[in-house]
Amino acid sequence: MTAPSRNALVPFVSVDNMMKLVLHIGVERMMAELAAEIEADFLRWPLFDKTPRVASHSEVGVIELMPTSDGETYGFKYVNGHPSNMKKGLQTVTAFGLLADVATGYPLMLSEMTLLTALRTAATSAMAAKWLAPKGARVMAMIGNGAQAEFQALAFKAVCGIEEIRLYDIDPAATVKCARNLAGRGLTVVSCTSAEQAMEGAEIVTTCTADKQYATILTDNMVGSGVHINAVGGDCPGKTELHRDILLRSGIFVEYPPQTRIEGEIQQLEADHPVTELWQVIAGQAAGRTDARQITLFDSVGFAIEDFSALRYVHSRLRTSGLYQNLDMIADPDDPRDLFGMLLRAGAAQAA
Amino acid sequence: MTAPSRNALVPFVSVDNMMKLVLHIGVERMMAELAAEIEADFLRWPLFDKTPRVASHSEVGVIELMPTSDGETYGFKYVNGHPSNMKKGLQTVTAFGLLADVATGYPLMLSEMTLLTALRTAATSAMAAKWLAPKGARVMAMIGNGAQAEFQALAFKAVCGIEEIRLYDIDPAATVKCARNLAGRGLTVVSCTSAEQAMEGAEIVTTCTADKQYATILTDNMVGSGVHINAVGGDCPGKTELHRDILLRSGIFVEYPPQTRIEGEIQQLEADHPVTELWQVIAGQAAGRTDARQITLFDSVGFAIEDFSALRYVHSRLRTSGLYQNLDMIADPDDPRDLFGMLLRAGAAQAA
Repeated sequence: MTAPSRNALVPFVSVDNMMKLVLHIGVERMMAELAAEIEADFLRWPLFDKTPRVASHSEVGVIELMPTSDGETYGFKYVNGHPSNMKKGLQTVTAFGLLADVATGYPLMLSEMTLLTALRTAATSAMAAKWLAPKGARVMAMIGNGAQAEFQALAFKAVCGIEEIRLYDIDPAATVKCARNLAGRGLTVVSCTSAEQAMEGAEIVTTCTADKQYATILTDNMVGSGVHINAVGGDCPGKTELHRDILLRSGIFVEYPPQTRIEGEIQQLEADHPVTELWQVIAGQAAGRTDARQITLFDSVGFAIEDFSALRYVHSRLRTSGLYQNLDMIADPDDPRDLFGMLLRAGAAQAA
Repeated sequence: MTAPSRNALVPFVSVDNMMKLVLHIGVERMMAELAAEIEADFLRWPLFDKTPRVASHSEVGVIELMPTSDGETYGFKYVNGHPSNMKKGLQTVTAFGLLADVATGYPLMLSEMTLLTALRTAATSAMAAKWLAPKGARVMAMIGNGAQAEFQALAFKAVCGIEEIRLYDIDPAATVKCARNLAGRGLTVVSCTSAEQAMEGAEIVTTCTADKQYATILTDNMVGSGVHINAVGGDCPGKTELHRDILLRSGIFVEYPPQTRIEGEIQQLEADHPVTELWQVIAGQAAGRTDARQITLFDSVGFAIEDFSALRYVHSRLRTSGLYQNLDMIADPDDPRDLFGMLLRAGAAQAA
C-alpha cells in the first residue's frame, strides 16, 4: 500500500498519552489552566452553536453526542452514562471527542475524553464556584466519593483555594479510596460517617453521586444559609440529588437552560422557574451571589462548550508535548474525485 | 505506564485497512453483500431509533452527526460536506463512524467511513433500483462522474445486472477518469458529450453531481416514460439536481421523509406531497413501481441506518480479516470508581 498523505492523518490522544499529559503538566496546574480556558469560552458564549445533546436512551443507560462550534473550530463528544456498569467492573461514563476545522470539515484531533471529562467537569465546577461561592471559602464537603471526587477536590484547591475536604459516601470503601488518593497533596482530608458530619463548617457542598433515580442526597434542613452548592451528580432525566425545597430557596445558576431543565436538579421545578446563566455572570450581564446569606446553587449537567474548551486545550499542547499518534483516518486521494482510483492503486501496490 | 486493559481497546479500521478489506473481498461482492445487509435493516426499519442528522452549518459547508440504534447496537457517523474542498485538493465528503454496545455504552469499533460511505451509498442506490427500476434494465446513464461514479456503476452491475454505463460530466476530465477506472471490469462503458447522449437507451439514470446550488442536471423533456431515476447528488438544503416538473410526474421513494423533505429533491415540493418510504416497499406494505411507463425516482440523501448496516458489516469481518488495529481509547481502571488512582499509578510507573 502507498503511505497515507498528510491530510489523511488525524492526531489521536490515547488514554495513555492523556495520562502522560496530565502528569507532565501537573493535575492542579492543568485544572487551573482548563478553568481559565473554559471561562474564556463562557465569556464568548453567544457566538457558539448551541444545541441540547443528542441522546439515545435505553433501559440501562444513554449514549449521547454533544456537538458545538465557534465558527472556526467544531467539536463534539461521544459520551455514555450507564450506572449499572460499575457492577460489571466498567466505567459509568466513558467518552471520546473530536475537533474539526469548520473551513474544510477535516478532523484536527481525536482524543480520549473519559479522563478529560473528569478534568473539565471539575474545572467547570471550580470556575463556577470562583464566581458564586462565599468569599474566602476554605472548607468543602464532598458527598459522593466516586470517580469524580478527587478531581473536584484538586480543582477547588487549585482554583478556589479550598484547604479542607470533608468526605462522605454511602459506601465507606469509596471514602477510603478517595482519602488515600488525596493524601499528601496539601489538603486536609476528613473522612466522615454521615453527610451531616461532612457538611459541618463547609462553605461549599459538592454532591456527586451516581445512582440513576430521584435520590435525595441533601434535604432542606441540612443546608444552612450562605452555602454554595455544586450539584454535579444530577445530570439526566430522573436523576437528581437535592430536595426540591433547597432549590426553592437558592439562587440557581446553570450552563444552558434548555438542557438543564431536562437533565438538571431543576427538572423538579416549573419550566419557568427563574435561573441565571453562568456565562452572564462572567460577562457582567447578571448578578452572581448577592449577599453572604444567600444559598447559591450551580446546577451542573455538563455542556458541549466545556468539552470544546478542553479539547482545544489538549490540541494546543500537541506539538510541544508530542503525546499523540497519527491515525490514517481520512481517505485522501491525490485527485479528490478519484477515490476509486486510490483503491485501484492500492490493489496494484499490493499485487506488486 | 501499565498496559491498557482489554476493555480500554477499541478496534480501529484505518483507510489503509478498509482498502485492504475491499480488495480482499472484491468490490462487486462487497457491494452485493452490503446491499443485502442494508436491505435486511430496511426490513426491520420500525425498530430503529431515527432522528434527522444533527448538522452544524457554516458558509462553506456542513458537519453532521448521524446516529441510530437498533436497541442492541448503536452507531453514528461523522461526515462533512464542503463543495469548495475540491479546489483545495481535498475531499468534498470525508467521514468516520463508530459502533457501540447499547448495554454498556462502550465503543465496539471505530472506522474510516469516507470509502465506506461511497460503498454504502452505491449499495443503497442499487438495492433501491432492484425494487423500483424496470425489470431487465441493462443500461444506466451516469450524470456526474466524480468520486461516487465508479462505485455506483459497479454496485448496479453487481446488484441489478447493469451491463452498459453511459458517462457524462460537465468536466470531460472526470469522464476520462471514470472510464479509465471502469475499464476491464466487464462493463460496456460509453463516454458521452452531453447528458442527452448519455441518456439514450438508458432505463436507469443516476445523477450524482456535487455543486451546492439549485442546479438542473435533468430537465423535464429529457426524461422519458418508464425510466428509474436514482438521484444521489441532491442531498442538502439548496442542493438539487432535477427540475421540479420531473418530480411532479414521478413516483417518489425516499429513505426517511422528515430528512428528505429538508435535504432531498423534494425540498422543491409542498411539504405534504405524497412520497413512499422505501422500507415499506421492501416490507410489502407499499407498492413499488406500478407499471412499465411509470417514472420512479429514488430521492436519496443517505440515512444513518445505511451507515449502521455498513459499520456492522465491517465489524462482522474484523475477526476473520484481522484488518484493524487496537486503540487505547477508553480509560478503564480496575476499580471503576478509581479513575484518579489509575492516573496516580501511571505516574508511579513512570517515575519507577
